[in-house]
Amino acid sequence: MEENKVVIISIGDEILIGQIVNTNASWMAEKFNEFGFNVVSILTAGDSYSSIWNALVYGRSMASLIVVTGGLGPTKDDITKKVVADFFNSKMIINQEVLSHVESFFERRGRSLTELNQLQAMVPHNCTVIPNAQGTAPGMYFHHNEKHFVFMPGVPFEMKGIMESWVLPRMQSVIPVDKIVQKTVLTHGMGESFLADKISAWEDNLPKTISLAYLPSPGKVRLRLRGKNISMVEIDNHIEELERIIPDLIYGYEVDTLESVVGKLLLQKNYTLAIAESCTGGYLSHLVTDVPGSSAYFLGSIIAYANSIKSEVLGVNSDVIALHGAVSQEVALEMAINTRQRFNSDFALATTGIAGPDGGTDEKPVGTIWVALAGPKGNISKKFQFGDHRLRNINLSANSALNMLRLSLINEFISESK
Amino acid sequence: MEENKVVIISIGDEILIGQIVNTNASWMAEKFNEFGFNVVSILTAGDSYSSIWNALVYGRSMASLIVVTGGLGPTKDDITKKVVADFFNSKMIINQEVLSHVESFFERRGRSLTELNQLQAMVPHNCTVIPNAQGTAPGMYFHHNEKHFVFMPGVPFEMKGIMESWVLPRMQSVIPVDKIVQKTVLTHGMGESFLADKISAWEDNLPKTISLAYLPSPGKVRLRLRGKNISMVEIDNHIEELERIIPDLIYGYEVDTLESVVGKLLLQKNYTLAIAESCTGGYLSHLVTDVPGSSAYFLGSIIAYANSIKSEVLGVNSDVIALHGAVSQEVALEMAINTRQRFNSDFALATTGIAGPDGGTDEKPVGTIWVALAGPKGNISKKFQFGDHRLRNINLSANSALNMLRLSLINEFISESK
Repeated sequence: MEENKVVIISIGDEILIGQIVNTNASWMAEKFNEFGFNVVSILTAGDSYSSIWNALVYGRSMASLIVVTGGLGPTKDDITKKVVADFFNSKMIINQEVLSHVESFFERRGRSLTELNQLQAMVPHNCTVIPNAQGTAPGMYFHHNEKHFVFMPGVPFEMKGIMESWVLPRMQSVIPVDKIVQKTVLTHGMGESFLADKISAWEDNLPKTISLAYLPSPGKVRLRLRGKNISMVEIDNHIEELERIIPDLIYGYEVDTLESVVGKLLLQKNYTLAIAESCTGGYLSHLVTDVPGSSAYFLGSIIAYANSIKSEVLGVNSDVIALHGAVSQEVALEMAINTRQRFNSDFALATTGIAGPDGGTDEKPVGTIWVALAGPKGNISKKFQFGDHRLRNINLSANSALNMLRLSLINEFISESK
Repeated sequence: MEENKVVIISIGDEILIGQIVNTNASWMAEKFNEFGFNVVSILTAGDSYSSIWNALVYGRSMASLIVVTGGLGPTKDDITKKVVADFFNSKMIINQEVLSHVESFFERRGRSLTELNQLQAMVPHNCTVIPNAQGTAPGMYFHHNEKHFVFMPGVPFEMKGIMESWVLPRMQSVIPVDKIVQKTVLTHGMGESFLADKISAWEDNLPKTISLAYLPSPGKVRLRLRGKNISMVEIDNHIEELERIIPDLIYGYEVDTLESVVGKLLLQKNYTLAIAESCTGGYLSHLVTDVPGSSAYFLGSIIAYANSIKSEVLGVNSDVIALHGAVSQEVALEMAINTRQRFNSDFALATTGIAGPDGGTDEKPVGTIWVALAGPKGNISKKFQFGDHRLRNINLSANSALNMLRLSLINEFISESK
């Protein structure tokens, strides 16, 4: 068996009844592949002794590394620890480090420890305890009959913390993995099939050692280039070529987001930003403030959801609203200009549109969105026509607004040197 | 073995490298449970002969009904049919019905049939062909050694069509299934382990015919009660008891959200809402406006991210900010009161806090959040101490604010009859 084979096992009845989608498994699969492992199977088992036992037996038969999430919480339906103890012939003992971690975890939050919480410190005597900085249930690692077993809680951000701080680096040091080089190019503004057409000559020219995957999500297409046992320089050369073909569509690489890229540009150029939102209802500001340190350039927003607020709080001329409608170029521009003035910011973005499901007309159907940007050298605006899906329209509008600001900043067409 | 046990097998390398999330499996799991089947495992296998073979062996060992999706397309990486033929000792034959379906499928779209497409009509001689109205690859059903095997294409809308038209009704008629009743109770405001402690007597009193699952997510715990072959009345009776134990913690049932529940209450009582956000940076407003129809009660927000905006745009006394700090009860209350006045709304919510990662002090560490609510009969405020994780702090703050409004509306402690 190739030693880099991995089986991912998710434990939880909530997946088996379709109550939640197993996003943990796909996140882990992506990470393991990135680190040169070969995920050969993903298995979900129920919260029962025999299910978990059978899953471990299956995992052991398929791979060298068996990674299990879920079933480590303190409540009664979590029985993974019982199975683990039997599977590895363990005695359960109190781990003092985990106990003091759990105690200080509750102390910091000013809450008292229950007996149930203390149980989290009970671990098999023959496991290596994996610290869980984000929560109270520790991870566990066993090296047993030439196989590696890792157990983690199923809470996504706890699992991710343990994966990145311990599992990936540690398992990569004890299991021989492929040398994977990969880079993901992030694009906004063109759908998957149009993009594929536009870059088809470039794609055909890629060597066989590099694979290309299109990873579409609303408004964005990520292009992942992956090579096995080649150098990063080779990948970078092909990306340089791509940048010449679609310069404006590429907003970043790897884990960049439109909001983090825009944030970096604002910071670099020492600009500030304010926002006026209607149809996006706070989502655009939320994206901007998702970025740690955004308070250095983001001043604030006015969400003018009701038309009365557009005029009373934001000062948009009510005659303009009456004449052109709230979803119009004129209103979008006035929202941006007034907000820039009111907040005394360098730039102000504005959105107004019909997110749906109601409010559409023949002339302005659901999905009609205006985005405007006011800046030191002038103002621009753009109309978008999206679809019928409310949350998707909100998402696409906010991202289109961010991209408008990004293009203005890199091309400096409504900015000035500071 | 109980005859209603199901194993779902998804075939596809794209799931194993984390390229796509396996939403097919969760959709199928939900459907099978709804129809009284018991999904005991979900397995993803790669596009290789041995992977698929091992998956079938595993499925057969775990369940009476083995349902497989993926790997039935005409391209070269799809080898499920080869495995199937060997697994069931089949000869491959041309099925005339499928052939004419494929031919007319292409004819209707004005496209010509390739040799690859004709291969879709090759099926094992000993299977029952399942029609695929949405596509060209037929489904296949085998009844083999007391076990039921179903194979379907992995394209979501083709799979869904085959499931609803054939698999669910047909399998329900040949396999004895349970009558399932279930209800999910949604709680906010108490962690999983504390909640488990508080309701342990109630939980211990549940009959064996009802199972209880804790489904936690940040700030929320869903409690799923599920009964086999009992009436919904029995479940409802236990939920009524639960409502007496934790009346304030329960905010809804099934697919309710805090924001949809708050929206319904505001609508019912004909109240309007405005918001002032600092640390939540737009996320609270986004939750409120996620709800279709929220424009009926939501007027708008001011996001005062910079302190200067708190005083200049929101009118918070800058002496108060200097004296108590921006993250204080005094500032939170003034933000709420001023916003209620400025927007002329019945209620105004305000958040101010330190989301992190920077900005914490010994006195006010990261995760310190103040929430305030101004209403027709007065104003309330509450301090929360969350953790270190920025996005989680934003999420928990927004949900705590919504819950403060919810409790005020149902208990009417700062509202008045309208």
